[in-house]
Amino acid sequence: MESSIINPAFILVEPQMGENIGAVARAMLNFGLTDLRIVNPRDGWPNERAIAMSSGALDKMPPVRVFDTLSDAIHDLNFVYTTAAFDRFMVKPVMNPQDASQDMAVRAKDGQKIGVVFGRERSGLTNDEIAAGQVLITIPVNEDFASLNLAQASVVIGYEWSKHVIQQFAAHTPTGKSFPAYIKDFDDFFIRLETELDKGEFFRVPEMRDMMKRNIRNALLRAEFTDQEIKTLHGIITALTRKQS
Amino acid sequence: MESSIINPAFILVEPQMGENIGAVARAMLNFGLTDLRIVNPRDGWPNERAIAMSSGALDKMPPVRVFDTLSDAIHDLNFVYTTAAFDRFMVKPVMNPQDASQDMAVRAKDGQKIGVVFGRERSGLTNDEIAAGQVLITIPVNEDFASLNLAQASVVIGYEWSKHVIQQFAAHTPTGKSFPAYIKDFDDFFIRLETELDKGEFFRVPEMRDMMKRNIRNALLRAEFTDQEIKTLHGIITALTRKQS
Repeated sequence: MESSIINPAFILVEPQMGENIGAVARAMLNFGLTDLRIVNPRDGWPNERAIAMSSGALDKMPPVRVFDTLSDAIHDLNFVYTTAAFDRFMVKPVMNPQDASQDMAVRAKDGQKIGVVFGRERSGLTNDEIAAGQVLITIPVNEDFASLNLAQASVVIGYEWSKHVIQQFAAHTPTGKSFPAYIKDFDDFFIRLETELDKGEFFRVPEMRDMMKRNIRNALLRAEFTDQEIKTLHGIITALTRKQS
Repeated sequence: MESSIINPAFILVEPQMGENIGAVARAMLNFGLTDLRIVNPRDGWPNERAIAMSSGALDKMPPVRVFDTLSDAIHDLNFVYTTAAFDRFMVKPVMNPQDASQDMAVRAKDGQKIGVVFGRERSGLTNDEIAAGQVLITIPVNEDFASLNLAQASVVIGYEWSKHVIQQFAAHTPTGKSFPAYIKDFDDFFIRLETELDKGEFFRVPEMRDMMKRNIRNALLRAEFTDQEIKTLHGIITALTRKQS
């Protein structure tokens, strides 16, 4: 994680269920976020259900800050994203989570303090609350079942943000102490296989021999055997060709 | 959603909490997925807590299928992704959710039936269970708090998958019935503003006048006013310059 970046704050407006606050905290810390602010929580603060649901996240984060109004909760920020299931017919930039997180990363690296505001479980944010921020984020979901909840939305935003601050990896195949086999070792194995297949009269149609060999080679090469696995394959051929008594 | 695509199945191995099963179902349907399979659920099936937590998703999906073994649950699939918090030192391709969903989309469009396997809440999948699938998915998280739960992981995978099947939108500013103002209308407003600023002796330093005008123009253009908003701005100037009695 780049220490020079100020991670975004997550601001929950009038959350009703302590469980959801805890789930948001857990998702935040999973993705490296620690600035959780709550506006006027229904059941007050601290909240035992939130603590239980956070799986220890709330203990490892700086204390949650509680505010009376959204305005108070975002006054120290430069740029605020609000969230809603659908856009609200306001003339306001709308972004999906991926584009928003890209925008957030650019601003955060520029030193801006940013925050993402999430609404009430049942009714979301009011239009006035959405007007408090510069950008509205909506998450494209199944139109026939668009009931993404508070905790789920925080997972999506936290996850997209994390791509910019948590080390990502490219698709790969870890080989541990072994290493992808050198082509020579693969070829030695393949020649042995071919020899044994000839002995076993595998290639019954001579004209098909070359094509079948090529197909088998392609199939086996796709497995990307390691040097250790090539040894195992030699052992397999030895076992299969052993004279049964 | 492209109807020709077979959406991936989500397979939960020995889930303990009905709430988590319900949360997974909800996340699945939010992202257009409907094939939920459970291997040996601790509390049996159906599960009242799962139904409650699914917010109606379980009623709107085809019936969940319950299996005794993971092997039974995946036999009709062509390609299986397993999930784990960390890779397991097996020689097996590892992908992040984004790359995995790209891979899933290519296979699904090719007609392959695919599935994603999620492990137990506490202990995840065994190494043998991970060996049942072709690819392992891991989600990069905060190394100091890597406690992504079952429901959260399903949100991330479902969300990444949805990018390939649910209509995405580019960042934009909806303008409703109005339309971004034509430059001529903006210029007319700006000339009026300039005239009024001259009357109000705003430009005290003549050498600064051009630069200040340019800065104000840049600031106002950034707002990308609509035609309706330009009319509102004219009204604002009228009100501000009205002689106070």
